[in-house]
Amino acid sequence: MDFALTCPIPIQQYPTVVMAHGGGGRLMHQLIEKMFVATFGGEALNHRHDSAWLELPTSRLAFTTDSYVVRPLFFPGGDIGKLAVYGTVNDLAMSGARPLYLSLGMILEEGLPMETLWQVVLSTAQAARATGVQIVTGDTKVVDRGKGDGIFLNTAGVGAIEHDLTITPQSVRAGDAVILSGDIGRHGIAVMAVREGLEFESTIESDCAPLAEPVLASLEAGIEVHCLRDLTRGGLASALVEIASTAQVGIHLQEALVPVREEVRGACEILGFDPLYVANEGRFVAFVPAGQADRAVQVLRRFAVSEGAEVVGEVLASPEGLVVLESVIGTSRVVDMLSGEQLPRIC
Amino acid sequence: MDFALTCPIPIQQYPTVVMAHGGGGRLMHQLIEKMFVATFGGEALNHRHDSAWLELPTSRLAFTTDSYVVRPLFFPGGDIGKLAVYGTVNDLAMSGARPLYLSLGMILEEGLPMETLWQVVLSTAQAARATGVQIVTGDTKVVDRGKGDGIFLNTAGVGAIEHDLTITPQSVRAGDAVILSGDIGRHGIAVMAVREGLEFESTIESDCAPLAEPVLASLEAGIEVHCLRDLTRGGLASALVEIASTAQVGIHLQEALVPVREEVRGACEILGFDPLYVANEGRFVAFVPAGQADRAVQVLRRFAVSEGAEVVGEVLASPEGLVVLESVIGTSRVVDMLSGEQLPRIC
Repeated sequence: MDFALTCPIPIQQYPTVVMAHGGGGRLMHQLIEKMFVATFGGEALNHRHDSAWLELPTSRLAFTTDSYVVRPLFFPGGDIGKLAVYGTVNDLAMSGARPLYLSLGMILEEGLPMETLWQVVLSTAQAARATGVQIVTGDTKVVDRGKGDGIFLNTAGVGAIEHDLTITPQSVRAGDAVILSGDIGRHGIAVMAVREGLEFESTIESDCAPLAEPVLASLEAGIEVHCLRDLTRGGLASALVEIASTAQVGIHLQEALVPVREEVRGACEILGFDPLYVANEGRFVAFVPAGQADRAVQVLRRFAVSEGAEVVGEVLASPEGLVVLESVIGTSRVVDMLSGEQLPRIC
Repeated sequence: MDFALTCPIPIQQYPTVVMAHGGGGRLMHQLIEKMFVATFGGEALNHRHDSAWLELPTSRLAFTTDSYVVRPLFFPGGDIGKLAVYGTVNDLAMSGARPLYLSLGMILEEGLPMETLWQVVLSTAQAARATGVQIVTGDTKVVDRGKGDGIFLNTAGVGAIEHDLTITPQSVRAGDAVILSGDIGRHGIAVMAVREGLEFESTIESDCAPLAEPVLASLEAGIEVHCLRDLTRGGLASALVEIASTAQVGIHLQEALVPVREEVRGACEILGFDPLYVANEGRFVAFVPAGQADRAVQVLRRFAVSEGAEVVGEVLASPEGLVVLESVIGTSRVVDMLSGEQLPRIC
């Protein structure tokens, strides 16, 4: 697709974003009307008011936010716009909420090619449609050249909670099974590969995807979900360490059961990364009572995004607050939280 | 106050923000637990989950977002944290909603002094408390040195709509009075003065303030409010032009009735600005039926933030879609929307 041809802002006249696009005057209104409102659509945006008015199906809400600063803006399998929609939708899904509405805040750097902005806006709108959420309110700021990095996005999300469970780390208990929704490590490695110009035999694509459908289906099937967590910054290891510590339980993970694709494993070896710590954008863990684990796995496998769901571990009373990795050869070690992450700016 | 002394992160060890503070590992968790959760408090944050769970008093919501990129971070009368709370609370208030919950997304630049971050966090928490809103969910990202500008904030806000009015630009009609809540131009000039190192006889302080109280009091008093608009980027002029154009009415503004403080007028003359276009962060216009204008002004004047409320104009059927400024000497001119704004990054 030639984005320059379809861009609703005349590219000859405004090839790049200028400071005035964030200044509250005519240029900003033109950008908002022609590019944002026209593309994101919806009644709420059409009111042109400071806030969107929403009628909700329930009075119990989930509310969450994430900023997105991924570098580069485009990577195999996704881009910052897709990430900003799926990332926030997934945070809502991890509460078992039905994602409904998103806000979208953009911080643009002066000099950003208008075509790049348009490409991100289109991708954002497409991801929202694919997920069934509406972008109902937004904001645009422009910062001087060298004071930003192309585009930063922020989305906040509102979702309806229609279940009566308490889906939190505190609800995890001894006797729970740990279900992983699929192979790990692809998002982080996909971003890293393009950033560092690494070439592998086949392109590694990000796993970036929305997770609400399999989660809501599990709840509808009556699975008594204790906790859900998507495996973003810090990866599987950090998520489990945090949950074990909050719930004061011992999480025992079978290394052999954790799927890592061959090319991801290879890239991790070259780069010196442990796939357990690499970020994902379409993977999650679910803690459910062991007796319901098989049924939960069956439900999850009905959806492409979680067709690789497997039980990969179990929760015991001890060691309290720790994650133990049991290796293929029968040894075991305590999994620690890293100080930072190996991969900055992957989301 | 010596912020270095009270900072909950040991400043000797971490004098500045490093990439790992956004990496999903131990350093990020330490920052979130010790600085953010401990300061913003509240039950929702204590769940340590991906989203906050909220119980709302109504099923009708207002939802809004703004990013904040003001430069410098601190200015007379405010700072980026105060702005991020009041700005979003005010957008909710402009829908006649009762502000309840905020999300807070931070994009920090590597190298930001930890003390500066702490100072902004304290100010943000204080502003939230002063306004009665809870910060219930947040996110922290760190970008490399030179790819950001200290701190960018994003807040999204959720408020409850407890009235039955349709407070939108479309509701404005001929016969409405235009009420202005106080003197204009202070925020933009305060920021500009410190940025450019200008010195005036007395320091011009930003008007940065929360607006929900006078708005909710007007609604409780039964004033049939047609439209509310806070006068941020683009100032009074841009707000009125946008409303006139949306409602297809003629807004007639009496220049002599629009209060501008002497020192602001002086600074505008030196800088070549028109105060009508200068941004405010604690001023708004209200459109109400002319017959209720006196009563509305009385209600607004009960609050310090709007004690200077005055009727400054009226809405007529013509000229359709335009704002007409009637000057002190009896001439009149059509007020246009500027292309950009004279003052970049004032919010």
